[in-house]
Amino acid sequence: MNCSDTICAISTPAGIGGVALLRLSGPEAKTLAESVLTTPKGHRMTLQPHKAKFAQLHHQGALLDEVVATWFEAPHSYTGEEVVEISCHGSMYIQQTMLQLFMEQGARLAEPGEFTLRAFLNGRLNLSQAEAVADLIDAQSSSAHQLAISQLRGGYAHKLEQMRQQLVDLSALMELELDFSDEDVQFANREQLKALLAALQNEVTVLIDSFQLGNALKQGIPIAILGRPNAGKSSLLNALVHEDRAIVSPIPGTTRDTLEETLTIQGITFRFIDTAGLRSSDDPIEQQGIDRATMAARRAAIVLYVATCEDQDIAQQINTLKENIDLTEKQLIVVLNKSDIATPPSVSLPDTNIVALSARTGQGLDELLDRLVTNYKTNRSQRDVILTNARHLEALHHVDEALKQVSEGLAQEMPTDLVTIDMRDALYHLGTITGQVTNDEILGTIFSRFCIGK
Amino acid sequence: MNCSDTICAISTPAGIGGVALLRLSGPEAKTLAESVLTTPKGHRMTLQPHKAKFAQLHHQGALLDEVVATWFEAPHSYTGEEVVEISCHGSMYIQQTMLQLFMEQGARLAEPGEFTLRAFLNGRLNLSQAEAVADLIDAQSSSAHQLAISQLRGGYAHKLEQMRQQLVDLSALMELELDFSDEDVQFANREQLKALLAALQNEVTVLIDSFQLGNALKQGIPIAILGRPNAGKSSLLNALVHEDRAIVSPIPGTTRDTLEETLTIQGITFRFIDTAGLRSSDDPIEQQGIDRATMAARRAAIVLYVATCEDQDIAQQINTLKENIDLTEKQLIVVLNKSDIATPPSVSLPDTNIVALSARTGQGLDELLDRLVTNYKTNRSQRDVILTNARHLEALHHVDEALKQVSEGLAQEMPTDLVTIDMRDALYHLGTITGQVTNDEILGTIFSRFCIGK
Repeated sequence: MNCSDTICAISTPAGIGGVALLRLSGPEAKTLAESVLTTPKGHRMTLQPHKAKFAQLHHQGALLDEVVATWFEAPHSYTGEEVVEISCHGSMYIQQTMLQLFMEQGARLAEPGEFTLRAFLNGRLNLSQAEAVADLIDAQSSSAHQLAISQLRGGYAHKLEQMRQQLVDLSALMELELDFSDEDVQFANREQLKALLAALQNEVTVLIDSFQLGNALKQGIPIAILGRPNAGKSSLLNALVHEDRAIVSPIPGTTRDTLEETLTIQGITFRFIDTAGLRSSDDPIEQQGIDRATMAARRAAIVLYVATCEDQDIAQQINTLKENIDLTEKQLIVVLNKSDIATPPSVSLPDTNIVALSARTGQGLDELLDRLVTNYKTNRSQRDVILTNARHLEALHHVDEALKQVSEGLAQEMPTDLVTIDMRDALYHLGTITGQVTNDEILGTIFSRFCIGK
Repeated sequence: MNCSDTICAISTPAGIGGVALLRLSGPEAKTLAESVLTTPKGHRMTLQPHKAKFAQLHHQGALLDEVVATWFEAPHSYTGEEVVEISCHGSMYIQQTMLQLFMEQGARLAEPGEFTLRAFLNGRLNLSQAEAVADLIDAQSSSAHQLAISQLRGGYAHKLEQMRQQLVDLSALMELELDFSDEDVQFANREQLKALLAALQNEVTVLIDSFQLGNALKQGIPIAILGRPNAGKSSLLNALVHEDRAIVSPIPGTTRDTLEETLTIQGITFRFIDTAGLRSSDDPIEQQGIDRATMAARRAAIVLYVATCEDQDIAQQINTLKENIDLTEKQLIVVLNKSDIATPPSVSLPDTNIVALSARTGQGLDELLDRLVTNYKTNRSQRDVILTNARHLEALHHVDEALKQVSEGLAQEMPTDLVTIDMRDALYHLGTITGQVTNDEILGTIFSRFCIGK
């Protein structure tokens, strides 16, 4: 984690294009650039802060390219260091030769994410913001993008800072006791301590619970399509994605593998998982398919249960479903298919969305999609903060665990010095999220998932 | 060919990366950018010429990205128009949404090469320079790169301008006669005219002849490897490219198809073409291979004739080769293979490079490569101007043809008005190269080979 050298990389996507961008960062960035660049008339180049300058770049005595160079003066740059950005023609030859040229002059090829790492080390971003940069670049949908950009702009850093402050205050009270432990006094009001702790534990739990939604937004919200054989599950999948993805036949049990298709509606990505029809089967392959369907349903955030408008036993089917799969953490939407050949029966299912549609004609499909989007938006708006990062989730699990130990310690009236150890543990893990606590291993893991040049 | 609207495109290579660059060009570029961008604190953005500004970009009320925007004030920009370049995070989502945003504001998605087309239409580049931009972006080797950049910097535009001026002068002299044609006078000194014309024709021929080298530099210099069966041609190819590219066996006639491998040495790309051994064969497939070998040799710039150090009839082999293939326009290098098992015989072949080597041990290979590079450099330095563009070649062929007609007209003392028609034809075709003469069809063809965003 050394910022004393000057690094360089091509920051634009790999390949050939109209323009490519080479980025230099470090104490020598400006000096290096000026030693290599000349003005269009061949004079010595003097860069000025934040000014885009036309320049020429020579290599081995010959003109390599005509470029535009911009110097971002420290600390007013992405990394907080001296930064020079040079935009050149996007040929492979020019990109490679320019890198080579700057390496000959003493720059070092940047590691993946090293510019952002330096931004973190120089205090331009906290660690969770730095991680958001990689998420931002990877984001493919509007919802994933919004999560990343909100994290980049601070996200729940404010919330974490609040929690940290509460923990610090609690710790301070307990450490004070510790200083006077010989005198067997209790400075802290234990009841007040317990109440604060419970509130804190609750906040941690809310954050942890938001991860499932956060992860779903990054990866796509998983929707399992379940139902009896021949209800039209595969037809529904095909109708949703407008192609013949799943094999459809009148023979019950046609689908065995679970098929997955992604659909982005109004910027939200949904992952539809078609499954084998639920029934008892003697066919061992079909039975495997049914087991997989159940597994898919357990992992899904939403269950689309497909029945048909001809079915008379819909309430019973839903009861059977609920017996087999725990739906408490999931949304259930009942789809009544084949509305083109039968009138939807009137079914009363409290707290359940019911949509009648025809996978064959497409009638009612829009209503289903609207329902999915509306439900998502309601769910989303109920949470001010959403956790998206697996590393943060792990850290929060550690915090949760440590707080439980503190709580137990207080309940069992354990010695203060033992309780404060757990308290410090909670503080430590909270600190790893934003980078108040860090080490080379954590940083290595985080920045290795970046692309080079960022 | 309308420059009244404002165009936008992503100019960096397609894909995901640290940074992507969106480019706007046209009368509304600055206004559009300022209407969409805000300062980091959310205030109205005022761009300043050539100044890189940190900015925020919102879409549908939400922050889309934090960007750097630079305004290049007309005419001091690539296109000669108002240009704004916005560098953003290189996610697909941000790139697409930014394009969409500017299109919603009234910008139009740029056609391939449209920025460079505008640079041409606004007089920032001539046509042959504009074409060089596409070559520059495609260049994969140092030599192809040097050709493109020299063309971008004007290249032989100067030479063409000289030729054009001479043609204009000649025309003027002849047109003067035409004005006085009733009086049957000859203002122009016909002998002087003929001498000027001959000099011009010679220059056109030199340019046309340079195309083979120019094309070879762009595509790689084609080198045919010829020789009798089992001389070790395929072993040589494998040794040159350090891999088992060609199947090698002691059975004569192993190679049938022509195999091609590219090798870049000191920035020069060579295309080695391994061929079937030359001999009379009854096997129809082998005979087809031999025919292909002859064809490859005819198209090659260099012939590597492979014999072995054991051969006693090398001079005779070369004679046979020359009888079958016209080598006057080619370089011949004779390779004496198997120097590890026999002493190279002393052969006297005037004006022919001879290299003894062992494809098996690699001994002598470097000498062969040095010879290829040295020969190339000698050849290259003999030409101050090299034609690389097939469109220019075609135009010069037309010029050549027209000048021949002029020359014949003068020789046959044809009426001046007929001769001047051919003269104007020559001028026309010369003008199409740099764009003094142009039309939508020519421009369409040229710019369609560009990438979008350039």
